[in-house]
Amino acid sequence: MAELVGNLLVGQSGGPTSVINSSLAGVIKEAGRHECIEEIYGGANGIFGILNEDFIDINEQKAKTIEGLRYTPAAALGTCRYKLDFKKNPEKAAKDMDRLFEVLQAHNIRYFFYIGGNDSQDTSHKIHEEAVKRNYEMRVIGVPKTIDNDLPHTDSCPGYGSVIKYNATTVIEVGTDVSSMATDDGSCCIIEVMGRSAGWIAAGTVLAKRGNPANPPHIILLPEFPFEEEKFLVKVKETVAAHGYCVVVAGEGIKYPNGEEVGADRTRLDAFGHPVLSGAAEKLKQLVQGKLETKTRTVQLGYAQRAAEHFASLTDSDNAFACGEAAVRAAIGGQSGFMVKIVRQGSNGSVRWTTGLQPLGDIANVEHFVPRDWISEDGFLPNEKFIHYAKPLIEGEVRPPVEGGLPKYVSLEPSKVEKKLPPRG
Amino acid sequence: MAELVGNLLVGQSGGPTSVINSSLAGVIKEAGRHECIEEIYGGANGIFGILNEDFIDINEQKAKTIEGLRYTPAAALGTCRYKLDFKKNPEKAAKDMDRLFEVLQAHNIRYFFYIGGNDSQDTSHKIHEEAVKRNYEMRVIGVPKTIDNDLPHTDSCPGYGSVIKYNATTVIEVGTDVSSMATDDGSCCIIEVMGRSAGWIAAGTVLAKRGNPANPPHIILLPEFPFEEEKFLVKVKETVAAHGYCVVVAGEGIKYPNGEEVGADRTRLDAFGHPVLSGAAEKLKQLVQGKLETKTRTVQLGYAQRAAEHFASLTDSDNAFACGEAAVRAAIGGQSGFMVKIVRQGSNGSVRWTTGLQPLGDIANVEHFVPRDWISEDGFLPNEKFIHYAKPLIEGEVRPPVEGGLPKYVSLEPSKVEKKLPPRG
Repeated sequence: MAELVGNLLVGQSGGPTSVINSSLAGVIKEAGRHECIEEIYGGANGIFGILNEDFIDINEQKAKTIEGLRYTPAAALGTCRYKLDFKKNPEKAAKDMDRLFEVLQAHNIRYFFYIGGNDSQDTSHKIHEEAVKRNYEMRVIGVPKTIDNDLPHTDSCPGYGSVIKYNATTVIEVGTDVSSMATDDGSCCIIEVMGRSAGWIAAGTVLAKRGNPANPPHIILLPEFPFEEEKFLVKVKETVAAHGYCVVVAGEGIKYPNGEEVGADRTRLDAFGHPVLSGAAEKLKQLVQGKLETKTRTVQLGYAQRAAEHFASLTDSDNAFACGEAAVRAAIGGQSGFMVKIVRQGSNGSVRWTTGLQPLGDIANVEHFVPRDWISEDGFLPNEKFIHYAKPLIEGEVRPPVEGGLPKYVSLEPSKVEKKLPPRG
Repeated sequence: MAELVGNLLVGQSGGPTSVINSSLAGVIKEAGRHECIEEIYGGANGIFGILNEDFIDINEQKAKTIEGLRYTPAAALGTCRYKLDFKKNPEKAAKDMDRLFEVLQAHNIRYFFYIGGNDSQDTSHKIHEEAVKRNYEMRVIGVPKTIDNDLPHTDSCPGYGSVIKYNATTVIEVGTDVSSMATDDGSCCIIEVMGRSAGWIAAGTVLAKRGNPANPPHIILLPEFPFEEEKFLVKVKETVAAHGYCVVVAGEGIKYPNGEEVGADRTRLDAFGHPVLSGAAEKLKQLVQGKLETKTRTVQLGYAQRAAEHFASLTDSDNAFACGEAAVRAAIGGQSGFMVKIVRQGSNGSVRWTTGLQPLGDIANVEHFVPRDWISEDGFLPNEKFIHYAKPLIEGEVRPPVEGGLPKYVSLEPSKVEKKLPPRG
């Protein structure tokens, strides 16, 4: 195979995570080891910026900035939710694709890496196929990223280990707080976590129990299972009776048996006429207070959970970095049209991590859910099978440097690469 | 002065913090140095448990458990909101006071320490006065504790430094996330923090700016200032135009000029007929999305912020410990009827901390607010005076031990002291 000489373009896409920059650092570090890669460019705000020829020159960055990406949350290059949507708007998507290849060719991009979740892998897949069709020699490799952990074929998704480590820590700490306040009346706390359709994030908080059934969380509500009000209230009541308090973790996307989101309030409409989404935790709180008369408080971690670098998982961060490196190695080795996947070897106590490749066509638009037999029969708690899976993902701590009592993160210099094309039409 | 020989009783009261156990450890450690203190008892669930003669035997605890209290969040002894309320129910309060002194005398309690906020200092004050009146020789010292930082006369309150360190860290991390997602449309994130009447907690997040006006938080809403909708929306719009995104921190208790809480929804009633409190963040989100059409997300940290030991302030924890020690030293020295206060010496860069004493009568029921001249003229950001005050409080990190990727906290053995009285009537 002839060596492919040219420039590299890497982009980040979708919702940020604590370790998406670690994957970026992996791509950059590995790229620096190969002479056939001449310039290293970062696409600003993913495909959206790439279409506008907004490139950041990585070779203009300080070495310590690149090193700092390994412990800096969010997307240093910026990200987007922009899609090449051939289904909804084929004409616009085709126009975008033409523009994209103009941009890629103008800058002699021969290595293209896109770090993202399901939609981004789909984008990478389309770009790979288009390059083949156009006979434009370019290696396209997807790098996995999503706190939702819903990509198929990979053991886990970079970002997931960190979010459940932080959320489980929060459950331990909030649980200690609530239990120390518990009086004869009992009390309840609802912690809402991310996860609109898959329950991996909510499920991961089971690690806070550390083998003790009395420990919180006492109930975990996954979006995969219909929310049954009566069953839930009975369980809360039983838990408060047994332990004096009850900590509930709810995935934000939990739904009633009729498919309606628990967090949606159909009695109120916002300025656009949509039902107000006041959130699952708020709704559950009203339910518990109203029906059981048990004092209830809520925590809604929102973006904090996916950006909590100050207590991120080192295993997760290292795996994210390894995925970035592996992507470049695969491309240098002549591969294109694959996503890097994480492969687990050994089991609890002696897990080792490697990477593999999976055709992008196997990934796109397949959502991976928590297996039913990893959850207790009543649906309220993940079981040993889940714990066995999740525990190794939270091992080790990323310890970002601290200055004046606060973590000190890096950001890229806005060194823009000179544009070569007229502005996008 | 004759040496007072007898037993020690310590209790914890009100909402827990990350460092209330550090104060408890300080009391226990110092008590162990004085032979005139015979038994060391912990009152379970504050005054509420003490009235029931529920004492935990501290001498039955392992030394490493006592050491572990220095990095364990929440109230290890349990806490309560129970008051000796002579105003609302003088008959019951008088009966409680009689019972309390029966309990104290039955166990020969000669040293009484109560770790808590405003109400608890009031309780300590009443107990001190009652002991004098009854001619029962007992030394009563209050130990300050409250994340709200609203106790007068002390430089700061143990618990406050840790909550603002964690909240400022969250603002930095969430800000990085939101800014990396920002597109041309802009976006907004509202972070709701604790603080029902004083704005110290919300104000403390200004430390996240670290001197850069472009950094989040861009707007901080304190409960001290009436919330003016129009002014707020103009400021959000300006911020989004300037930076592409806007991070708002809101104290949970912010109010409209008419005194109504922003978080209260008068259009809906709960099962008891009270207006639903869906929270300030939720309400602000609806406002920003509805009026400015700017995509808005919320974070509501709730109890997580006051229990976040995994990134607590070492300065705060050390001060809390020192307050516990100082309380015992003062009592041994013959003092009673005082609260320990934190005293700051020197200024930024070379701050040193000591403790002092303040009569309990000066503390009870006085609420300390953020001074008006520590806040910008438009009321949206604390200024340099505030930063100068708050910065030293977040220095240093408590690093609890980690096992299997999660912090490992201690809990007290439930070694109960034998009861000597018939049950409370």
